[in-house]
Amino acid sequence: MRVGLLGAGRIGRIHAANIAAHKRAKLVAVADPDVASAQAVAGATGAAVKGADAILAAPDVDAIFICTPTDTHAQLIEGAAHADKAIFCEKPIDLDAARTRTCLEAVRNAGVRLMVGFNRRFDPSFASIRRRVAAGEIGSVELLTILSRDPAPPPVSYIARSGGLFRDMMIHDFDMARFLLGEEPAEVHAVASCLVDPQIAAAGDVDTAAVLLKTPSGKIAQISNSRRATYGYDQRIEVHGSLGLLAAGNQRATTVEHASVAGYGRDPALPFFLDRYADAYRLELDAFVAAVLDGAPGEPGGEDGLRALLLADAATESARTGHLVRLKS
Amino acid sequence: MRVGLLGAGRIGRIHAANIAAHKRAKLVAVADPDVASAQAVAGATGAAVKGADAILAAPDVDAIFICTPTDTHAQLIEGAAHADKAIFCEKPIDLDAARTRTCLEAVRNAGVRLMVGFNRRFDPSFASIRRRVAAGEIGSVELLTILSRDPAPPPVSYIARSGGLFRDMMIHDFDMARFLLGEEPAEVHAVASCLVDPQIAAAGDVDTAAVLLKTPSGKIAQISNSRRATYGYDQRIEVHGSLGLLAAGNQRATTVEHASVAGYGRDPALPFFLDRYADAYRLELDAFVAAVLDGAPGEPGGEDGLRALLLADAATESARTGHLVRLKS
Amino acid sequence: MRVGLLGAGRIGRIHAANIAAHKRAKLVAVADPDVASAQAVAGATGAAVKGADAILAAPDVDAIFICTPTDTHAQLIEGAAHADKAIFCEKPIDLDAARTRTCLEAVRNAGVRLMVGFNRRFDPSFASIRRRVAAGEIGSVELLTILSRDPAPPPVSYIARSGGLFRDMMIHDFDMARFLLGEEPAEVHAVASCLVDPQIAAAGDVDTAAVLLKTPSGKIAQISNSRRATYGYDQRIEVHGSLGLLAAGNQRATTVEHASVAGYGRDPALPFFLDRYADAYRLELDAFVAAVLDGAPGEPGGEDGLRALLLADAATESARTGHLVRLKS
Amino acid sequence: MRVGLLGAGRIGRIHAANIAAHKRAKLVAVADPDVASAQAVAGATGAAVKGADAILAAPDVDAIFICTPTDTHAQLIEGAAHADKAIFCEKPIDLDAARTRTCLEAVRNAGVRLMVGFNRRFDPSFASIRRRVAAGEIGSVELLTILSRDPAPPPVSYIARSGGLFRDMMIHDFDMARFLLGEEPAEVHAVASCLVDPQIAAAGDVDTAAVLLKTPSGKIAQISNSRRATYGYDQRIEVHGSLGLLAAGNQRATTVEHASVAGYGRDPALPFFLDRYADAYRLELDAFVAAVLDGAPGEPGGEDGLRALLLADAATESARTGHLVRLKS
Repeated sequence: MRVGLLGAGRIGRIHAANIAAHKRAKLVAVADPDVASAQAVAGATGAAVKGADAILAAPDVDAIFICTPTDTHAQLIEGAAHADKAIFCEKPIDLDAARTRTCLEAVRNAGVRLMVGFNRRFDPSFASIRRRVAAGEIGSVELLTILSRDPAPPPVSYIARSGGLFRDMMIHDFDMARFLLGEEPAEVHAVASCLVDPQIAAAGDVDTAAVLLKTPSGKIAQISNSRRATYGYDQRIEVHGSLGLLAAGNQRATTVEHASVAGYGRDPALPFFLDRYADAYRLELDAFVAAVLDGAPGEPGGEDGLRALLLADAATESARTGHLVRLKS
Repeated sequence: MRVGLLGAGRIGRIHAANIAAHKRAKLVAVADPDVASAQAVAGATGAAVKGADAILAAPDVDAIFICTPTDTHAQLIEGAAHADKAIFCEKPIDLDAARTRTCLEAVRNAGVRLMVGFNRRFDPSFASIRRRVAAGEIGSVELLTILSRDPAPPPVSYIARSGGLFRDMMIHDFDMARFLLGEEPAEVHAVASCLVDPQIAAAGDVDTAAVLLKTPSGKIAQISNSRRATYGYDQRIEVHGSLGLLAAGNQRATTVEHASVAGYGRDPALPFFLDRYADAYRLELDAFVAAVLDGAPGEPGGEDGLRALLLADAATESARTGHLVRLKS
Repeated sequence: MRVGLLGAGRIGRIHAANIAAHKRAKLVAVADPDVASAQAVAGATGAAVKGADAILAAPDVDAIFICTPTDTHAQLIEGAAHADKAIFCEKPIDLDAARTRTCLEAVRNAGVRLMVGFNRRFDPSFASIRRRVAAGEIGSVELLTILSRDPAPPPVSYIARSGGLFRDMMIHDFDMARFLLGEEPAEVHAVASCLVDPQIAAAGDVDTAAVLLKTPSGKIAQISNSRRATYGYDQRIEVHGSLGLLAAGNQRATTVEHASVAGYGRDPALPFFLDRYADAYRLELDAFVAAVLDGAPGEPGGEDGLRALLLADAATESARTGHLVRLKS
Repeated sequence: MRVGLLGAGRIGRIHAANIAAHKRAKLVAVADPDVASAQAVAGATGAAVKGADAILAAPDVDAIFICTPTDTHAQLIEGAAHADKAIFCEKPIDLDAARTRTCLEAVRNAGVRLMVGFNRRFDPSFASIRRRVAAGEIGSVELLTILSRDPAPPPVSYIARSGGLFRDMMIHDFDMARFLLGEEPAEVHAVASCLVDPQIAAAGDVDTAAVLLKTPSGKIAQISNSRRATYGYDQRIEVHGSLGLLAAGNQRATTVEHASVAGYGRDPALPFFLDRYADAYRLELDAFVAAVLDGAPGEPGGEDGLRALLLADAATESARTGHLVRLKS
């Protein structure tokens, strides 16, 4: 699978390195308005530096990785779809649901594969929970709890253009809730506060939030987010079912435990998403390669991207109005 | 402190045994319509069997423990208050907020001490969290998570008269939320389902529920309840603050870990509240004795009982209507 | 079961409180050369203060608890045996194996019950391991590891009369090894050092030691001891067998975990043997009562006391000479 | 750093992949009597297939990786030393101490770098313990415990030529003991049994063993080995010191915990050394590259290989004779 990479920033470089090391993929070209970034990726992987249009048009490119700023995603997806390329796009497709729908329409019309970068589905522990839930190990799912906290807030400049905490950060958790509930949430309650940094409020956003979701059959999910956790990148999930519970927790740099008169101590949680989800990014690429080359399902796809966004929109509204928001199924 | 016990059922027997073993307390009389129960307690502790009215009137009784059915609590509290006794009453004071208020008015007028049986405040781990939060170990409290699940539902006949899950079960968690947030919740969102046993729905109640609370300053609490957890009596709390996190988990009968080709295994959580909170009941009695004999604060008091009930009422309404319910401060 | 207690020191008071609270036992008399100690126990339990000889001769005493200094144990056991009393004696019977044998001969001749205070056998976690090993959960036992460390050394004056670390401290671990191996160790290697306090070396003893035991069938046990662990009273056991492993660890005062930028922290291990083994002492009494009143086995008995002492003697010799010491079976 | 690889078996392939992915190293040639193995490595890495002699003589090779059978190590090291190449050799240098000494003499005379493959030193958790011990976090080291158990025994044919459990398996733990004690052990006690498979005894070896080491200053180490652990590749270390304890444990494939009526369960330990020590092999290569290109220390070196072998020889003798074996310092 010959890949063209659009966007050589932080996440683009992760994908570039994984593609370069993959047995069935090859990075052939990279584009970025910041030429130095593009050249750095090219130098490390053997890819050529090109313009985005040239990459979309290149006959020796089978698949496009879109790792550019969010507001360019939808147009680039459409361009890649018209060029009949398979597409991997970082989340979200767009911050606007209507725009997302027209984009997905273009993808459907072109008949190309689109996969969306909800990397957490590929975390080995979370994926194991899903498989074990699906295998019936805990019976019927009843209560899902997702605790998701960033080590530190992003720059306020980023937050101002992010679409807000629910669309930028909790969207991952909405996808995970859908992934693990096995049923579409129909009701959304949200509360939110700005407790970490008043500049975030000044930028119109919140930094601490919690959501309740309920599905038509009565399954309940609770999600909480904070933009700051002193103890690392806190990523925990547990699913309570009729026969038991499955839970997955944080990872640490070492297994070392220290004991002293002050008690027992262990490492903080891995602090950075690139470390925490290093395996997930590799396995996500495996899934995309298998989708493109072998016809594997290629989930999460565009519809998953849309559904998560609709939940984020609903939560944004509920937090603002205090009302329950119902989603159409 | 000479104690008269009203109600010799399951919880009454716990208190009776703890009072009998306490260095500063003595159980002098016990009443129960079921004479055999009263006699059993009397035989084990040296107390006399009497009628409730006789106990309330007895000059050699300093304090009354009310462990009777809920619908008798308010009247017995008032009787004890009129008799100028110190009062320990199992939760709730009454299932009706207005009746609770008139009862508390009577207590205030009589100038007697009233302590309400929110035993979890005295659990050594939860009490330690509160002390450490108060000492500033995690800075400002931002997000509180309470996971509380019973091992199995009570009889449907009990549920039918219980006031519903929010007033009967989650009321403990509402008290714990107030205890740990350090601020009164002002907004309540609730969702609820009947997933465990359809007979519970037939009795007009739910068995699975989750709640979001928000305080005026923006602190958020999330609580989830289930009437059934196969893995034991699941009682976990964690508080996330600006400087860190404090969490307390379940207890096990042993520390034994078994490893085999199937992996590593440990005991389930302690299955029964009498085991799980054995220490808490003893420490609760210590606090009541200290309140009566030494003038210690004697918390949680009647106002705490009312506040938790108001949160339960709000959650019941929110779950029914789908609306956010605001509490008056 | 009417009990006379000889010795009202630290361990005597533990047994006194447990006997006083036991449903099937009653403390009727207590003796101690320190009259104030005896009176304190008497006051707390309702027992009478008497002399040791009077207690041994009392017709209303069924069982004797010997909690006096070690060098009086053998003679008191013999006295109690002659008086036809059931006997519970704190470990060791005597620091000298020959003296222990003559004492056990007297017990056998008298036909009375003797139980020796190896309390750790009754720890719920260690007892659970034994039951699960016996039930075949880990197949055939192959490797046993016992890590046993005191929080702090006893006074040097105590150490000087203690018989040395192997007879005073590791004797508990030798008993535990016999309890869990299910076979008598036949070979003993020991090494020892004085690393904690040079005054201990000046008193002729060591404070840090490790032992290897091997049984005739080839099972191996390793034991390590230190007189000082900053992190609490460290008491861990694991048994590796052909089908798996069973391990039991330390206990903590709370389940609280604290997370911060410095990582995750938990309480130290319970620091004191009276806390750590509170349950064990109660269950040990249950076993003695069942032995006396119901004819239950009453283990560990005098032979167990002797066997553990012989292992301690062998370890003492091995550590001194550097030679393997073989035990006669 | 241009590398020639001798031996394209299991461990050779690990090193080949790591070298190929390393930024500062390049695999230029590979030799193996099994041409298909050599070609497989060559195909995956771009290296050329050559004979061992040709690789040793090649001017475009800076460093030799020796991953051949043990009985060829010493001669190949000497050949590489004569050719003035830097050398990385899998453990052991030779099963015979005298032969090891003459080989190290040749290395010294040639003035080349030799690093020996005690990979566990580079495990992030074990390396962290060493750093933290060196930084004084637990004061003076007093007791070291190493539990090391393979998931399953190697083929009996391998065992017959392995030099025995102490030289083949426990040699890693002897190196780790030296690494963490910070002082050379001077006394060795060993016991050993054949409990896992009688064919191992028939081949003249043991499968279950434990060792005590003591240093001149009195520090004590205990090591236990088994050739079979049903619960995975069990690799645990703990160091007890005057101020506390540092311990490192096993790793698991996921963090998932499952709870049910049967209790709580987690994954077994990672079952295979290539998984368990994947990071260690990469970090070991980093250290070798830094030694060759930057003049970094390059430990563990030849002397470390010899010292661990001398401890293995001593343990072999002690287990056979029952005597303490003293090492010359």
